[in-house]
Amino acid sequence: MSDAKLPTRAEDFSEWYTQLVLRADLADYAPVRGCMIVKPYGWTLWENIQQALDKRFKATGHLNAGFPLFIPKSFLSKEKEHVEGFSPELAVVTIGGGEELEEPLVVRPTSETIIGYSYAKWIKSYRDLPILINLWNSVVRWEMRTKLFLRTAEFWWQEGHTAHATADEAEFETRQMLDVYTDFAVNEAAIPVVPGLKTDSERFAGALRTYTIEAMMGDTKALQSGTSHNLGQNFAKAFEIQYLDRNNETQFCWTTSWGLSTRFIGAIIMTHGDDQGLIMPPRLAPWQVVIVPIYKNDAERGPVLEAVARIKAELIDADVRVKVDDRDTVSPGFKFNDWEMRGVPIRIEVGPKDVQKNSVALSRRDKPGREGKSFVPQAGLAEQVKATLKDIHTALYERALAFRKANTFEPTTYDEFKSVVEKGWASVWFAGGREEEARIKEETKATVRCIPLEQPGGTGTCFYTGKPATQKVIFARSY
Amino acid sequence: MSDAKLPTRAEDFSEWYTQLVLRADLADYAPVRGCMIVKPYGWTLWENIQQALDKRFKATGHLNAGFPLFIPKSFLSKEKEHVEGFSPELAVVTIGGGEELEEPLVVRPTSETIIGYSYAKWIKSYRDLPILINLWNSVVRWEMRTKLFLRTAEFWWQEGHTAHATADEAEFETRQMLDVYTDFAVNEAAIPVVPGLKTDSERFAGALRTYTIEAMMGDTKALQSGTSHNLGQNFAKAFEIQYLDRNNETQFCWTTSWGLSTRFIGAIIMTHGDDQGLIMPPRLAPWQVVIVPIYKNDAERGPVLEAVARIKAELIDADVRVKVDDRDTVSPGFKFNDWEMRGVPIRIEVGPKDVQKNSVALSRRDKPGREGKSFVPQAGLAEQVKATLKDIHTALYERALAFRKANTFEPTTYDEFKSVVEKGWASVWFAGGREEEARIKEETKATVRCIPLEQPGGTGTCFYTGKPATQKVIFARSY
Repeated sequence: MSDAKLPTRAEDFSEWYTQLVLRADLADYAPVRGCMIVKPYGWTLWENIQQALDKRFKATGHLNAGFPLFIPKSFLSKEKEHVEGFSPELAVVTIGGGEELEEPLVVRPTSETIIGYSYAKWIKSYRDLPILINLWNSVVRWEMRTKLFLRTAEFWWQEGHTAHATADEAEFETRQMLDVYTDFAVNEAAIPVVPGLKTDSERFAGALRTYTIEAMMGDTKALQSGTSHNLGQNFAKAFEIQYLDRNNETQFCWTTSWGLSTRFIGAIIMTHGDDQGLIMPPRLAPWQVVIVPIYKNDAERGPVLEAVARIKAELIDADVRVKVDDRDTVSPGFKFNDWEMRGVPIRIEVGPKDVQKNSVALSRRDKPGREGKSFVPQAGLAEQVKATLKDIHTALYERALAFRKANTFEPTTYDEFKSVVEKGWASVWFAGGREEEARIKEETKATVRCIPLEQPGGTGTCFYTGKPATQKVIFARSY
Repeated sequence: MSDAKLPTRAEDFSEWYTQLVLRADLADYAPVRGCMIVKPYGWTLWENIQQALDKRFKATGHLNAGFPLFIPKSFLSKEKEHVEGFSPELAVVTIGGGEELEEPLVVRPTSETIIGYSYAKWIKSYRDLPILINLWNSVVRWEMRTKLFLRTAEFWWQEGHTAHATADEAEFETRQMLDVYTDFAVNEAAIPVVPGLKTDSERFAGALRTYTIEAMMGDTKALQSGTSHNLGQNFAKAFEIQYLDRNNETQFCWTTSWGLSTRFIGAIIMTHGDDQGLIMPPRLAPWQVVIVPIYKNDAERGPVLEAVARIKAELIDADVRVKVDDRDTVSPGFKFNDWEMRGVPIRIEVGPKDVQKNSVALSRRDKPGREGKSFVPQAGLAEQVKATLKDIHTALYERALAFRKANTFEPTTYDEFKSVVEKGWASVWFAGGREEEARIKEETKATVRCIPLEQPGGTGTCFYTGKPATQKVIFARSY
């Protein structure tokens, strides 16, 4: 990492973000336009996200599978909205083994079509249902304006694909997976999210209904952080995914798909980060604790490193992910700044005096300076660390929630609306449709992020049309 | 699955293999020529392989990362042997976002080149070394004749890529990872392997030295099951991967790469499988135990399912991967055949009599019929199951090793050689080179699988040239 300071978020949020990603060693630009390399520190964060989600997917009966990277181009055309949505973004293989291909192959932008083809082949009877499969892979969508993690031509994600016998089951699955994403965001990433329904203009290409979790970033913009789609019978009809029911009659299946991507790493950075750098949510942090040994000479070095090794072993025994920074080419001060920027939740310093006193200095990343630093005994340190990690999780969540509340407004007129969406979210009664949404977007850059599942009830007056409205929606500028 | 019987291995080994892969639900053909879909049962096996390897990679200091799917075509040309090796097999993207690309992008056949580019950018000083990174991904090599798991256009694998300051460290790493693969094959998959060095004609395109683990399949052919390459300074020079040493002088790095792929699933099938189907090695088996409840009427059903639920919970508590087959649409006999074909190591039957006697019927997949069936008390069942899984592991390994020994011959003349390589491996003194290897391959289809690391010592007479030879090699037909 370089010694120069990061720009502050107030100075230039976008530049703060990009420099942080690069300097914290999360990712780098690839030599292919629009693509990224996720470096080990970023990838370990992604692995922790994967584990936290995968556990939840398996607990709800899903298994993983591997589907091909390539999709015959003709498949895309079978679902009309789907092909319209994805055609402009495709990467196309036209040459294989030195020869021009008869039918070009698309590098998957998402796998609904090849899943549709396969499920049609696999499903014969109601006994084969439901099919509950998830894929961990990367997909490609040709993007012109890219930003590390948030929008890249290739990105990593999971895509769940399920097929069911009834409309109810498909809707249950769609909502269940939205709940899984919400639970993951709150309890693993300490990110408060608003679960809700997308309006028609923001629906996934080919879906009946799209649900989303929306999070407020540090600049008050919204980030769509995971989506769950009820595909109805659209793909079932396009690909003839059919089954024989108990009465031996042929029926179309009902399908769903749901995904969460490396974009979520952007959400973590922009929700919790501060002007000193990243703050990793403890449960997903690649390293939860970094230990920095402090000594001036060889006489001090031995006892300090001995204590450090013992503490490290105790923390590992307690399932804490711990890193000892024993570099002898940089100073402790440099290490403090480095790990602060990289967002390790807890720093433990061990010096000669700590060895004598059987204590350590413990610093919380979420509370910079003296406020977050305390001297704690080595006895019982593992329990202390675990309790502190829990506290940090709660503190991060509470802070993000308070920030969102402070920056969510309830304008009742369009004029008010225009001024508040410059600086935050607008929670408003809305009775408009596609056209109104398009006009508002053009004039203010704000879009309906979602119709929250949690509604106040009753009715209100639409801030834009003045008509009676039955639901509140959230408008915001977004990534 | 269909009710028809599998062909026996003696009748048609190749057809036995393919039907088994399809009918055991491990994989299916994709609608893209040469590609496969790995279904949940096959993918869970792959996940278990991944975990077993990943644990070993991390224990030896490696971290995972994510590198792009696409590589600029010009990168491939930078290392001469590398581009010659891979050019005929490339899939090429020529269109992105609706427009023809200025420079075509190759879908990675392997990542040495883009790794070379990146490491050159990241490494400045000896302090940045070593770099120890592994990738889990899929790669594409356009293949004309494909076979599920063994040879497909797209396959999944891991590719490790490391950079070091010295030749010794690179060689140490290359050999260390070969040891990791050997340990994994023996202790997780129960597959005996011969670790050895490839001859020049079988080296990886661009490597200084390629090491391999070779396993004997049920038809006595060899399968290359994992490779570890010492790349010397070939890629370092092609991509200018340099560092400043302690004397502030610029040096080229030494790099390695090593990989093991979904092909290994083919090795598991063809090493352990029998005429009834798969036999999963217990440590990697998606399900280690299947429980089949047996009852004739509702009165029996309740107590049986109660006992089954209790046994299942106990096995899960003991970290045994257990599946209860409670389908009410098929008979117990159908279930027995189904799980036998799918290779679950242990089957437990629980019927009304077992409930009365507090016992279960336990059947070992590796010992068909009465020999492998015993009645064991429910008390202490988890320990019994764990001990039996261990026994099965050992029995599978011993059986495979005995099979390899019985089918490895030591011919001393070319005539003898020709007859033995029709039916097994030839372990021979060999003093030939590229030319002799090519002639032998043309005449017998056998190639040098490896120069085993374990050598008898001394010298012998080359079976082919009659010259004095300093090493024994293994010749065999191979996949």
